[in-house]
Amino acid sequence: MPRHKGDHDARRRDVSAAVWRVLAAHGFGGLTLRAVATEMGATTGLLTHYFPSKKDLVAHALTLLDERRAGRPDRPAPDGLGALRAMLLDILPSTPRAAADNRIWVGSWDAALADPDLAAGHAARYAGSRERIRQHVRTAQSLGELPPADPDDVAAAVQSFALGLIVQALFAPDEFPPERQTRLLDGYLATLAGDR
Amino acid sequence: MPRHKGDHDARRRDVSAAVWRVLAAHGFGGLTLRAVATEMGATTGLLTHYFPSKKDLVAHALTLLDERRAGRPDRPAPDGLGALRAMLLDILPSTPRAAADNRIWVGSWDAALADPDLAAGHAARYAGSRERIRQHVRTAQSLGELPPADPDDVAAAVQSFALGLIVQALFAPDEFPPERQTRLLDGYLATLAGDR
Repeated sequence: MPRHKGDHDARRRDVSAAVWRVLAAHGFGGLTLRAVATEMGATTGLLTHYFPSKKDLVAHALTLLDERRAGRPDRPAPDGLGALRAMLLDILPSTPRAAADNRIWVGSWDAALADPDLAAGHAARYAGSRERIRQHVRTAQSLGELPPADPDDVAAAVQSFALGLIVQALFAPDEFPPERQTRLLDGYLATLAGDR
Repeated sequence: MPRHKGDHDARRRDVSAAVWRVLAAHGFGGLTLRAVATEMGATTGLLTHYFPSKKDLVAHALTLLDERRAGRPDRPAPDGLGALRAMLLDILPSTPRAAADNRIWVGSWDAALADPDLAAGHAARYAGSRERIRQHVRTAQSLGELPPADPDDVAAAVQSFALGLIVQALFAPDEFPPERQTRLLDGYLATLAGDR
């Protein structure tokens, strides 16, 4: 029954768009079945057909973010330190869209820390991100761009720097315009490389 | 009427304790007047006498955290890099209490990013924290412990590192036990200083 399946998918896309609008306006704390239903002009009953609980809505919102990120083309970059820099520039909130995505990621931490399943999902996401950073670090070390040091620790440090810069830039966008974000990132990578 | 004032203060302390318990169990997303009233065995009506809206509750919870932090004695430390290290060790989630406090700070970001007044409060808190870091950085530079570099940028970078490490440690406490947090911090300060 392809037609019915298509309707279902189209309706899930409508729901997704409404979830985005609610998150942008009110954050995860304001993400309720009722708020999404109101945003769509639908009933809560219809919505629960697609998402039985608030937790399903939150999980769906996070899946959307994963898909958005995975769907973005990689910035062309050389291997090693250049690839690491490109990866981090893609994460930082230096465009309105990246700021909106990051605002939702940061906003999801409260709900995730209160729910073991969501927390495990986030822990896995950040472990995966550290693993990608670690691969770039190892390549950079093999190219002599970074000094030898435990790549796991370097990856954890790099991710710390990026996450904390995101949080500060979201709260103080005027103090952290895109060019300062880039300057701070380049300064950090230079200290890691030992050139200052 | 000192007696009446005392009753009021005692009741506010009861409310505060209930707010803590709700936050620890459910995060800011679960912080509702009804949840706090239930936790206290009181009516929502009584609670609204002290906190007319959810926003007042959130603001009160953040004030409690500020007071807890301000009430902690400073770790004795020399000036400069040692003082910076001591300040950061006090922030990191390396004890159960520090982890609980950080969990609440991180959880508050969702609500704060959805509300201009709360966001302004957080922006001011982080600006104040960067200013304290900057003073330590300037002292460390004057002592020759850190190379000359824009102290504002160094302070923003240090705060980035600390905030991001907090977030990762909250989601993956087993991968970021206290001794690894300390090692990562010391590694970061060493790269800043240029000794590796």
